Parts: sequence; structure tokens; C-alpha cells
Amino acid sequence: MVLTVAATTSAQRRTGSQSNAVDLLITGGAVVTMDGERHLYENGFVAVRGGRIVAVGEASPRTAQAYPAKQVIDARGKVVLPGLINTHTHIPMTLFRGISDDLNLQDWLTKYIFPAEAKNVTREFVVAGTRLGLAEMIRGGTTTYVDMYYFEDAIAEETKKAGVRAVLGETVIDFPVPDNKTWEAAMVYTENFVKRWKGDPLIVAAVAPHALYTVKTEHLNEARALAEKYDAPLVTHLAEAPTETEYAEKNYQVRPVAYLEKIGFLSPRVIGAHVVHVNDEEIAILKRREVGVGHCPQSNMKLASGTSPIPQMLKAGVRVGLGTDGAASNNDLNMWEEMDSAAKLHKLVSKDPTVVSAREALEMATMGGARAIHLEREIGSLEAGKRADLILVDLNAAHLTPMYNLYSHLVYAVKASDVSDTIVNGRVLMRQRRLLTIDEETVKAKAREYQRQVSRSLKEGGQ
Amino acid sequence: MVLTVAATTSAQRRTGSQSNAVDLLITGGAVVTMDGERHLYENGFVAVRGGRIVAVGEASPRTAQAYPAKQVIDARGKVVLPGLINTHTHIPMTLFRGISDDLNLQDWLTKYIFPAEAKNVTREFVVAGTRLGLAEMIRGGTTTYVDMYYFEDAIAEETKKAGVRAVLGETVIDFPVPDNKTWEAAMVYTENFVKRWKGDPLIVAAVAPHALYTVKTEHLNEARALAEKYDAPLVTHLAEAPTETEYAEKNYQVRPVAYLEKIGFLSPRVIGAHVVHVNDEEIAILKRREVGVGHCPQSNMKLASGTSPIPQMLKAGVRVGLGTDGAASNNDLNMWEEMDSAAKLHKLVSKDPTVVSAREALEMATMGGARAIHLEREIGSLEAGKRADLILVDLNAAHLTPMYNLYSHLVYAVKASDVSDTIVNGRVLMRQRRLLTIDEETVKAKAREYQRQVSRSLKEGGQ
Repeated sequence: MVLTVAATTSAQRRTGSQSNAVDLLITGGAVVTMDGERHLYENGFVAVRGGRIVAVGEASPRTAQAYPAKQVIDARGKVVLPGLINTHTHIPMTLFRGISDDLNLQDWLTKYIFPAEAKNVTREFVVAGTRLGLAEMIRGGTTTYVDMYYFEDAIAEETKKAGVRAVLGETVIDFPVPDNKTWEAAMVYTENFVKRWKGDPLIVAAVAPHALYTVKTEHLNEARALAEKYDAPLVTHLAEAPTETEYAEKNYQVRPVAYLEKIGFLSPRVIGAHVVHVNDEEIAILKRREVGVGHCPQSNMKLASGTSPIPQMLKAGVRVGLGTDGAASNNDLNMWEEMDSAAKLHKLVSKDPTVVSAREALEMATMGGARAIHLEREIGSLEAGKRADLILVDLNAAHLTPMYNLYSHLVYAVKASDVSDTIVNGRVLMRQRRLLTIDEETVKAKAREYQRQVSRSLKEGGQ
Repeated sequence: MVLTVAATTSAQRRTGSQSNAVDLLITGGAVVTMDGERHLYENGFVAVRGGRIVAVGEASPRTAQAYPAKQVIDARGKVVLPGLINTHTHIPMTLFRGISDDLNLQDWLTKYIFPAEAKNVTREFVVAGTRLGLAEMIRGGTTTYVDMYYFEDAIAEETKKAGVRAVLGETVIDFPVPDNKTWEAAMVYTENFVKRWKGDPLIVAAVAPHALYTVKTEHLNEARALAEKYDAPLVTHLAEAPTETEYAEKNYQVRPVAYLEKIGFLSPRVIGAHVVHVNDEEIAILKRREVGVGHCPQSNMKLASGTSPIPQMLKAGVRVGLGTDGAASNNDLNMWEEMDSAAKLHKLVSKDPTVVSAREALEMATMGGARAIHLEREIGSLEAGKRADLILVDLNAAHLTPMYNLYSHLVYAVKASDVSDTIVNGRVLMRQRRLLTIDEETVKAKAREYQRQVSRSLKEGGQ
């Protein structure tokens, strides 16, 4: 897929021949690059200009002089790493955080989620939930996320204002939803949405048919054609639960991935969320079609969906990232816990404590995520020429003391609350735990108002 | 087992007939009691005198007057709940946090843990690691822990100084260890240790034969007899890995739990860590003998030990608590993540999203833990007459907004960093995130010194 974010100019890449004045210099801490050679600079620096990284490396006494900077961030006692990439969520559902748990899927959906959505989801609701989710993600060091929900145009506006990067999929589905009452209306909305954000440096607008069991073949084809027309990503839930496999086998006589392959849906523009129930043959299809996979270990555990064969997919070279799923199911947007859970879950299920190492888990949350959403040329690692999406993690806490191995720490010990600074596209969104682009207290107050409204609406419905 | 902590005086229980002046009054927040009826007071209070809770209930405008207090803690926007109980750890191993990961058990033990212990573990090392672990536990709201390590007498001293409650098991094993070079020396040390702490209000000294595959039958019997002589708990690793089952079947022609039953080891004084590989018959034995189980879901996942049949044990009425295991394997002492993992893991493995509900997970970390360590008459819930071990959790964070269900929040969304205050035996150990009984910066600096020493020692050994 051709990158839909604005291309790097050659002048930006040829930093050597330009002035070395930069906008931002981060120095004094360890730098985990996640580049091809997995460079790790114990006393590193990152220089940023015009939203991009212009240099990364081991710092010297001359670094500050070599890159005169408008802003300098002292990273002593911290580690600098690529911002985390959440490959699957439904951001406005933060307003349904913990609305119901420990239920079977049918009860959860029909008694809580569907009525709560039908009665409450408006453009204003989506704006409030997006702001809340953005606050949580910036605090936890997530710099890019992939979304599937309604009113994605409003989500795009809020995300851009907050300065976060996102692939935003307007959900299209074969029944009336809060923003569009018919398939035709949804397709018009989605086309306008994709056109509007074309070329934006932060927002990639996408087409998101909900799932193969809620969107008929003809509509899946229409959604694919729309995505092709605008060279947009195509985001969908894929092979999440055993019931989905049963549905595909009953209605299409093949399993989910094979069905999408058969109808020509799969391509390097597809980002599939979950991808739990796949066999070796289907893994080979995902690899061949360069489909991205958004692995959501905590959601899959909590909803008892099953265990995705991640070690096998990684071995086969499938593009695998990590995702949180929505806060109504998981119940937060915490990528650190997904890394930790992914590493541990696959060891248990494989009966092999060597699979999904800490470095592989961190890779899934950074470069793997970038590959899964087909933005690996722009984000996912700290390299000259790439977008300046990076975070600082404070290593001073008792639970991070002492340290033997940085990768191990990042996956098995660091918490979201250890992230001190979050930077996207060169813009500082959080500085020393203070959010700079979101009025957090107002956002939380609004979320509490909505909680009261939602709870009332469910009671009125007989809940 | 008779409680080894000092008994409540009848005067303390008859609070109604005494003056209502108290040492500490906590008011303004929700109070989750975890008592028999699971009372949850939306605007509750807890009054504390002489290290014990004298009253808990719904607050009224007259509460402050009714319980004139030396210290008042305003819990507005917070929730008050019983302190968490970590039923299995090796606290000094915080100094080995992340020393090696993603290895098979044999490599991990023989290449890292055993040489690192042989070359570095002294009384001073244990003191430093204990202080570090205590800092982490107080910060995360753990008020009681069960330990197995060496130099437990030093661990007891540090734990008492820091004001934390603990069941401390001096590890005895059939090979030379850092504090005792022979079995006989270890038994003398352990007897003195148990005698010294008898009747202490915070410390319960215990006998801890390492495991059935490292302690021969004769020595297991001696350890049991020593525990019986002093009415002390008997702590051991039990049925952790498939290799242990193989060992027992090969050497004793029965499975681990059945073997311990056969030799008369099992009783209400036993706390078994892990207890992964048990069948229905063995679960019935554990129930009949009132053995406590320290379930360590994250350790079991990371080391690929297997999945403990927790839903079956809970159904059978076995005493089940949660534990973190040591920081060398897991790699932190975070009980919130154990609750979250327990709830999710058992849903996945049972293929049933309704098992191990949030309330059951919280129960395992509080009252269940108290039952597992046979201290349920003293701790585990907020009830008049019980020890005042309680924590405050700040609900204001973005990742905790909004809130529909308190139990769900506590298990699926709250993080260790949300704990604002930790109180043990009526003493405030952390107030608004500031540790009051531990000089944390000094402790962390010392831990970093040990890390350098340990790393050097492994290199010298050819690592």
C-alpha cells in the first residue's frame, strides 16, 4: 500500500547537507531504536526537526553543539523508545469502561453494549469518549492507534487536535448504527471521510467493514472497492471467535480467512483485528497477501475467544502488532500490559518459556505494529528520516530497580505510569506526566456525566 | 491452626462500651469491605484504634463526632479496601529482577539463578533486597506477604521495621545454601527463628521445606514436626511443574499432593505455592486438609508451568489466594496484575468468560489470601475487630474514568500506581504516595550497587 501520510521531502532526508539546527534534542538517556540492527545506545540522543527524526546515535560531549536545538529534553535516568502502536481499539468505548464484565458474549452484547450504544452514541458522545481515550493513550505512551467505530470524522478531528497519529476506520455494517441508518448512507459518509483526510500528516482515514458475519459479500466487495479507489486501509475484525468460523463454514463452506481470500478481499491494505482462529494454510495466505494482524491478547483472554497462534505467525513472517481492543471489553488502553500478557500467554500455551521473548513483544508493540498497519517506512523505530514518534520512560521507580536488561524491563516490569513524556510528529504531547494538548479534568468530568446518562438509559430499558 | 499473632482483647472488641476516641478515621470514600455479606459502603468510614478496626459502615454527618480521631484521612474520590495479601514470593530476589528471562527452567536456574545466589546472597544482600521489595509492595498496596528464602530472620527484622505484615518461611533444603551449609544447621537456625518471633503482632515465622523434589521424606517429616512443635505455618512449593509430578511418580509412585498426604505432611498449617498439577481427587485432599493455595498466574504463564485448576478449586471450597512469586521470575511484586491475569487466564482456559469474576479475583487477593494463609480471623476484610490493614485507591486517573462497577474497576483497570495510602496494623506506611517507613532513594541506590556486583560475578563465572 502506498503511504497515505505526506511523503518525506528529499531535503529532510539529506540532513548532512543542511544546517544542523533542530527543533528538539533528547539526550542523556538510553535509546532503544528498534531499527533493523536493533541498535541500543546506552547514552544516546535523538534530534528532531520538522516532525521527523534527523539523527539518532550515541551521544558525545559535542552532541548539544552539533545539534543546536530550540528545545532540549534531558533524558537522564530514562529510556527513549519508539511510541507504542495500538493496532486495534474502539476509542469512544472508553465511556463504557467496565459497563459489564464476566458475561458470555451474547449477554454482554445484547443486554449492555447494543442497548447502551443505541441509546447514547451521538457525535458528542464520540467526541467525549475520544478525548478520554486520547488522554489515557498519551499518558501510556501510545503514539499511533487504529480505530473502528462510528462518527470517525469526529474522532479524526479530536485526534488531530490532540496531536496523536491514527488509522481511523469508519465502521460499516449491515444494520442501522448511530451515525448512518443505511448501508448507502454509510458508504457516502465513509467516502467523504476518506477524501477529507487524504494526505494528512497524522490521520489516515480507513474503510472498516465490521466483520464477515455482519457484512454480506456484496457489501464487503463495495467496501474493498472504496478503499482501493482512495488507496485507503481496509480494517476489519477477523477470525476472532469460534462462532465466526462456524458462521463462515455454514454460509460460505470455508473458514474466515479462506473466505476473504476467495472474494479477493485480502491485500496489503487489510488490517485484521484479533485473527485467533487460523490454521497453517491461512497463516500462509496472510503472509502472501501481506495482511496486518492486530493481536489483542488480553481481550481474547477476557472474552474467552481463544489463543492466536502468534509464535507460528511470527515464524511465518506475518505482520503482527498488538492491540488493546475497546475499553468496554478489556478495560483499558494499556499497551504495556498487552506486551506483558502476549509474552506470558504464548509461553504458557506453547508450553515453551522461550517463545515470544521480551524483545519480540516490544517489537510487536513498535515495528511489528508499524508493519501490521503498513506504515513501517514512517514509524515504529527511531531512525533518521522517520516521523518523530517517541516516548520517554522513567526508570527510577522501585518496581524498576535494579535493572539487568532493558528489553526485559520494558516488557515485564515497566508500567504505563512510568511513561514521562510522549512526542508525536515532533510535538510534545506530554511533558513530565503533564498533558499539553488535552484539558484532562474537563474531559474526565464530561465522561462522568455520560456514565450517569448511560446508566440511566440502561435502567429505563429494564436493566 | 491457632493464630500466632497476638489475640484481640475483649476490651478491644467491646468498642460500644468504651470511649469512641480512635487513632485514625478514614472517611469520605467508598468502602469495599469484602466481609461475609460483601458490604460496600458508597460513602463509608473506617475507624481504627490500637491497630484494629473498631467500626466500619456508611458515614453520616455525625461520623466525625462519633469517632473523635487523632488522625483523619479524607478518602474523597477514593476507595478504601482491605490490603492485598501476596501469598507467595521470595522478597530478596527483587535484586535479581530481570536477571534473565525467556529461558527454559534448567538454563534459567543453572546459568543464572543458582550461580548468582551462590556468589552474592549474604545477610546484607537479603536486607537490601527485602527493603527494596517492601518499598514496592507498600507502593502497590500489599499489606501482608508470604516469603520463602534464606536469612528469614533478617527479612523479619526489616519487615517489622517497615511495618508490613508477613508469614516468613525459612527455606530448608537438601543442599548447602547461603545461610546454612547443612540440614542440621538449617533446622537449628529455623527453630531459633520461629521461637524468636512467636507472638509478634506483625511477623509469623514459618518453616519452609523448599519442595518435595529437593527435600527427602525424612527431612520433610522433621520440618513438619518442627512446625507442629511451635504451631508455625509450613510453607512449600507444591505441584508447580510437570517435572515435579514425574519426580513424585518415579520416586514415590504417587503424584505430589497424594505423596504429601501419604506422609502426613498436609494439614491446616500448610501453605502450598503454585499447586498447578492437581486432579479432582487431589483437590478433595487439599480441601479436606484445609491446605492453603498460593496461586501465581503470571509466574505459571511466564515459566510455562501450566494452568492451575482454580475454578475447580474455588468450587470445591479450597482456600485459594494469589501470589506474585519472586521478581527474578515475574518480574515485579504487583498484585493488581495478578488479579487481572487470574481473571483473564481462567476465562481463556475454561473457554468460559463467566468464570473467576472480578469479585472472585479481588476475593482471592484479600479474604481468599487470608484464608490461604490461615489468618482469616485477623485480616482479609474490613470488619470491626480485625487488624487495620487497609489501602486507599485514587479513582481519579483517566484510565479509571468513568466508573460503572467498583469490583470490575479494581480488577480490570486499577494499577498499583493508583494506590495512594497503605496502612498496616493501624500504622500509615504510605501517605499520598510518600513512603513513611522506608528511605526509598537509599534503598534503590543500594540495589543498583548489588546489580553491578551480581553482573560482575556472573561474568567472572563465564557468563
